[in-house]
Amino acid sequence: MSKQRKTTRFAGISALFINCSIKKNKKESHTQLLMNKAAAIMTDEGVTVEKIYALDHTIAFGMVKDGKKEAGIKDDWPKLQKKIMAADILVIGTPIWLGVKSSVATQVIERMYAYSGDRNEMGQYLYYGKTGGCIITGNEDGIKHCAMDILYALQHIGYTVPPQADAGWIGEAGPGPSYGDTEWQGKPIGDGKHPVGFDNEFTNRNTTFMAWNLMHLAKMFKKNKGISAIGNVVDNWRQVTNAENVNPEYR
Amino acid sequence: MSKQRKTTRFAGISALFINCSIKKNKKESHTQLLMNKAAAIMTDEGVTVEKIYALDHTIAFGMVKDGKKEAGIKDDWPKLQKKIMAADILVIGTPIWLGVKSSVATQVIERMYAYSGDRNEMGQYLYYGKTGGCIITGNEDGIKHCAMDILYALQHIGYTVPPQADAGWIGEAGPGPSYGDTEWQGKPIGDGKHPVGFDNEFTNRNTTFMAWNLMHLAKMFKKNKGISAIGNVVDNWRQVTNAENVNPEYR
Amino acid sequence: MSKQRKTTRFAGISALFINCSIKKNKKESHTQLLMNKAAAIMTDEGVTVEKIYALDHTIAFGMVKDGKKEAGIKDDWPKLQKKIMAADILVIGTPIWLGVKSSVATQVIERMYAYSGDRNEMGQYLYYGKTGGCIITGNEDGIKHCAMDILYALQHIGYTVPPQADAGWIGEAGPGPSYGDTEWQGKPIGDGKHPVGFDNEFTNRNTTFMAWNLMHLAKMFKKNKGISAIGNVVDNWRQVTNAENVNPEYR
Amino acid sequence: MSKQRKTTRFAGISALFINCSIKKNKKESHTQLLMNKAAAIMTDEGVTVEKIYALDHTIAFGMVKDGKKEAGIKDDWPKLQKKIMAADILVIGTPIWLGVKSSVATQVIERMYAYSGDRNEMGQYLYYGKTGGCIITGNEDGIKHCAMDILYALQHIGYTVPPQADAGWIGEAGPGPSYGDTEWQGKPIGDGKHPVGFDNEFTNRNTTFMAWNLMHLAKMFKKNKGISAIGNVVDNWRQVTNAENVNPEYR
Repeated sequence: MSKQRKTTRFAGISALFINCSIKKNKKESHTQLLMNKAAAIMTDEGVTVEKIYALDHTIAFGMVKDGKKEAGIKDDWPKLQKKIMAADILVIGTPIWLGVKSSVATQVIERMYAYSGDRNEMGQYLYYGKTGGCIITGNEDGIKHCAMDILYALQHIGYTVPPQADAGWIGEAGPGPSYGDTEWQGKPIGDGKHPVGFDNEFTNRNTTFMAWNLMHLAKMFKKNKGISAIGNVVDNWRQVTNAENVNPEYR
Repeated sequence: MSKQRKTTRFAGISALFINCSIKKNKKESHTQLLMNKAAAIMTDEGVTVEKIYALDHTIAFGMVKDGKKEAGIKDDWPKLQKKIMAADILVIGTPIWLGVKSSVATQVIERMYAYSGDRNEMGQYLYYGKTGGCIITGNEDGIKHCAMDILYALQHIGYTVPPQADAGWIGEAGPGPSYGDTEWQGKPIGDGKHPVGFDNEFTNRNTTFMAWNLMHLAKMFKKNKGISAIGNVVDNWRQVTNAENVNPEYR
Repeated sequence: MSKQRKTTRFAGISALFINCSIKKNKKESHTQLLMNKAAAIMTDEGVTVEKIYALDHTIAFGMVKDGKKEAGIKDDWPKLQKKIMAADILVIGTPIWLGVKSSVATQVIERMYAYSGDRNEMGQYLYYGKTGGCIITGNEDGIKHCAMDILYALQHIGYTVPPQADAGWIGEAGPGPSYGDTEWQGKPIGDGKHPVGFDNEFTNRNTTFMAWNLMHLAKMFKKNKGISAIGNVVDNWRQVTNAENVNPEYR
Repeated sequence: MSKQRKTTRFAGISALFINCSIKKNKKESHTQLLMNKAAAIMTDEGVTVEKIYALDHTIAFGMVKDGKKEAGIKDDWPKLQKKIMAADILVIGTPIWLGVKSSVATQVIERMYAYSGDRNEMGQYLYYGKTGGCIITGNEDGIKHCAMDILYALQHIGYTVPPQADAGWIGEAGPGPSYGDTEWQGKPIGDGKHPVGFDNEFTNRNTTFMAWNLMHLAKMFKKNKGISAIGNVVDNWRQVTNAENVNPEYR
């Protein structure tokens, strides 16, 4: 547990962390460790944080809202979707495999996408007014590639992406210890007491920046009641200045 | 020229559109046409808009701020950088070639990156408090791929990416007319009077949403004086709740 | 069934097609239709073709060879892996969702990756001597992006990628019919008798080229007994000319 | 100069290495060092190797074959294109900036693409029968992402991509020395005599595998006179078994 002082600066803000590791046992997830760092910052600053380990749940494949109703297959997603809708901030965590985000992360995003045609109470797409980021760790490179994939998806369905909304850790090219390991191939790393990556300045700084920027944006949206509903409302964008009426033939 | 009424809703906001087409002659750029749609919306809503055609300028290669000073090569970039710094909103336009953004777009982003270690007046990275989007057109597919690349880069160096900050147009798989063409392979398309893509509902809607969301965020940042400078300041992030002090070993 | 004449040109060659659609019911998969075109070409030219619909099987998540043995979870993968190992050619099919390959495709590749440390009989990585391609269809753009992801993964674990080893179909930007549809939003398309995309010259040509190039390479490898095992054998690459012994300090 | 024995195993094979660094001065390119390792292996095995540093040349932007003829701008590309056409093997080297390949690499590939409609003597697309790979180094992560982009482009225009055709080096997440550095931030690394990355087993192995696999494929193509010209010839693919004639409506 972090020993930092607790503030109420961001009271009323909620955040959801979804770990999309492909490991059955969440205790083995290295990504969780770095996610916990970001989560702890938020908790200590007054945010209500909840964590989900995706593989603890049975999530149906498909561009469906409710796999049980729509395809007759077991599906815990609807209850996870409720948590996503209740949170101001979403952080998706993923390992890197073959340079890309995990199958579980892909599935989680597909399921969120299935709801993307829905509207919020202002008639905007569902996820408008929320803000999102991501945490990546791996035994191979690809932090930025995974991040661009995840952050793109989030903004495409309605999330706002604050500056430097991604953080991650990888080691030098080639096989090696994963984030938080104290030994590798049966031998202690260094004195065996300092988990790899925990003191990486770059990773800690980016994780800090991500956490704070997500909180700042969430608070701004809270105050502003989301993003003003003009020009971005599915049913009446033609009633305001819009691209359909413009003749672009001038330069 | 757009016939829409002009408002002052976003007076005081400025936007820069950089077209990264690889065509020497900007009059041949199809991407410019769609950029103009987005630009016209902003203009009509009171934003001060400036447009740059990157290839009208000599831009030096390299991770340098000023190619002339640092490498003795002709370089118009410093004056373009000033325009970027003066604008609240940045929209990068690119064609698609082999599924990715253009060499010119890559170069423009590299040059912006060269300044990314600099700070704004609050000690944050230089581009904090600005918001960015992109426009993509092509004769082959790749809108989303180009957008994820560009939007990732922008947020990584400090921009905030609002929801649905990308818009684009491509035709059906395979060779065919480009955005705004009225003929193809020497023959008129339809009645030869309706430029391809101009009435595509999806493209027009996305372009509209992008333009408005960029304006909404820019206005919010104007009011909020950027993003609060806590937890995201290079020189003192360790003075607030941060990832270095956290022990992540709990789940 | 194709009415083309059957040759024995590629007798002795086998191909596996894995459809990674996220639809529960494989009869609804549009991607399958285009995969079938490629498969039919191979069948007609003497290749022994097998098709797998991934979601007909329970595939465990994880970087494991056998989920049942290693994690106590139901896992049909080992029998699918046997089919992969028995085939000279692998074609992975995927739909596009949010610009990237499906969760199922990601999972299939992860599971193949779990075996990638294994060796073939010549001491090379397991998949050496095989050749791979991909088929992509979607209601949104991203053919090239999905293809670069899949083809990269295949070559990284040992497959050879022949020229133009990807083919796909998408429509104009925006929502619309999927490959093979004859109606959209309840109305017939054209005369309602010509499935969308079936006569797209670009798609047909690329599908043809992909199928033939995979067969040509597979035949070449058959004749050559795979790729010569010099300089690419895990256990003895240091015994031949190699990068470790080179001083690269000259230009 | 490497002290390894020279063989004639691959006599008659030629390779071209194009370094797409964005540094004006090629002596500062870290990527060149790793490219030199791969090049040395080929040289020592009898391949005729030529190296190009792209920024030593003035390359015009645009989807043009000859910028001077087509757009009246200075353009050295036509002579570089000749070298590409003369080589059996192409290796593209690039640094990583913001997780993607360099602007110069993007430009080089665009220019190669401009010729991709041309045909070889067998009526296939121009680059059929050649084989390609890539070398990536960086101060930030993205080896696989850059590689998937480059290798995809190469195979799309006609190159064959052998197994493990990419190699690279990056350090641990965050700023740090680049490949081949012996000091960082003014201080020697270790004893200051061992350039960073030179002894990385993973990088050396992958570089070795890439070099050998490119040579093996090139030799195979030499013997086979390229890829058989059936089913992949632009002007007569409809005369053989093809996707246009297939009814895919069976599963």
